[in-house]
Amino acid sequence: MHLKMRDLAIKFSWIFIILLIMLVSESQSVSATRKISKYQKPRKQFVLYYHDNLLLDPDDVANSTSAKVTSGTKLGNYEFGMVVVFNDPVTKDQSFQSPEAATAQGFYFYNMKNDYSAWFAYTLVFNSSEYKGTLNIMGADLMPEKTRDLSVVGGTGDFFMARGIATFTTDAVEGIKYFRLKMDIKLYECY
Amino acid sequence: MHLKMRDLAIKFSWIFIILLIMLVSESQSVSATRKISKYQKPRKQFVLYYHDNLLLDPDDVANSTSAKVTSGTKLGNYEFGMVVVFNDPVTKDQSFQSPEAATAQGFYFYNMKNDYSAWFAYTLVFNSSEYKGTLNIMGADLMPEKTRDLSVVGGTGDFFMARGIATFTTDAVEGIKYFRLKMDIKLYECY
Amino acid sequence: MHLKMRDLAIKFSWIFIILLIMLVSESQSVSATRKISKYQKPRKQFVLYYHDNLLLDPDDVANSTSAKVTSGTKLGNYEFGMVVVFNDPVTKDQSFQSPEAATAQGFYFYNMKNDYSAWFAYTLVFNSSEYKGTLNIMGADLMPEKTRDLSVVGGTGDFFMARGIATFTTDAVEGIKYFRLKMDIKLYECY
Repeated sequence: MHLKMRDLAIKFSWIFIILLIMLVSESQSVSATRKISKYQKPRKQFVLYYHDNLLLDPDDVANSTSAKVTSGTKLGNYEFGMVVVFNDPVTKDQSFQSPEAATAQGFYFYNMKNDYSAWFAYTLVFNSSEYKGTLNIMGADLMPEKTRDLSVVGGTGDFFMARGIATFTTDAVEGIKYFRLKMDIKLYECY
Repeated sequence: MHLKMRDLAIKFSWIFIILLIMLVSESQSVSATRKISKYQKPRKQFVLYYHDNLLLDPDDVANSTSAKVTSGTKLGNYEFGMVVVFNDPVTKDQSFQSPEAATAQGFYFYNMKNDYSAWFAYTLVFNSSEYKGTLNIMGADLMPEKTRDLSVVGGTGDFFMARGIATFTTDAVEGIKYFRLKMDIKLYECY
Repeated sequence: MHLKMRDLAIKFSWIFIILLIMLVSESQSVSATRKISKYQKPRKQFVLYYHDNLLLDPDDVANSTSAKVTSGTKLGNYEFGMVVVFNDPVTKDQSFQSPEAATAQGFYFYNMKNDYSAWFAYTLVFNSSEYKGTLNIMGADLMPEKTRDLSVVGGTGDFFMARGIATFTTDAVEGIKYFRLKMDIKLYECY
């Protein structure tokens, strides 16, 4: 009886060893080939609205948060090369008058010959009770598409070392003076 | 005889346990200290050619895909500060007339006092049967060097969350109107 | 006596198996949920000083390393929208005349209506006996804050695939002609 127990113990230890080998080899392949799945849910996600208020009338400084620094070129009729520097309010809902969730600081320019399309690089600066820190974002805003994906390439503070995707949707356009973007921020890497 | 077998089994289980400890500790150091080796092969690699066709004659819109948005400054004689916005064709071979593999959308500027050298930030936009998505790239194009490495800092779509290196080689220069860069894209992180 | 030894061996192997399971499961959670801790020490850290010498007098090319490419706009009184392209010396100590540790190549612009504040994107180019390679950095330089964190979004050469934080502190300002930034570079991912 006593000997049989020992036999059983030995058998069980073999089963455990095999299970461990399977576990270890899976853990290895995970760390060696990928950290996250393409289809995985973001680790953090939130929607923000970006309000761009371009200075057109030089007397309207109070209501403006962005300004043209170069004029469009002669390459087509869609302001190709017009560079805008902005320090725009970002809110949690669509209302321009809502409390600021962040500011968006950076620039965009138009860059298509036969339609409006833009390219952005900017920093979301958070300084609220909820978040303190920044997210750095760059990429093409292919305006003819319904949704456009830009890259979140880094972050600081509460967003230390974050990476992910910012999906743009045009939410409102009022002539050249004002437009609003819905930014769906999905962070797949953060700490 | 039966007892000897059990002795052997116990000895083998010890050997396995030691092997497992070695495996686990290696797996740990991999995930804790580095994800990929500096000398590792890229997980994805391809060569693309970038064609920059600067608008010089305002009547040559049809054959141009980039435009100057600022003029060079007085800092040296190499167009220091001249900013060019581009929406340039990218092909798989050197021919400008080949089918577009992608477009390169972004800007560069010259930034050296005593030679031509540039700095780039741009998005490779793929919309073919092969790839849909973008790669975001930035870095110094140290033109006096034969090859220059820029950073792939993010990606979307088929290049979801990609990172890597884009190695530039000047492939052709035709005055100030046209130049061609060979871009060797190496992705070390992708999903 | 001989049998007791074997019993002991079996017990020890069980203890080892349990320890291994704990080790493996910890290693797994590390690789699945996070690569590095927010509070972890950087894997590489160094302090550099950035010297910006703006071309004001067109005859002072020899002593200048940056130039204005657009003028400030009418949006406030703090040069909102003034873009500066630079190829600035970077040293290990505060002296402008010290040997170059790197050059900083890129651009900044002012982007605040009611105070001076800036946004940077640039490459640190190292070509010394100590380091060869580049670091690519972008983010908001919120000048009203004592320290500001930007993102290191990529690197090449000796800084292959690096990521981290660059913390700016204003170290000296001499009118509009010269300023010096202390850059505390902390790399949390490198190879």
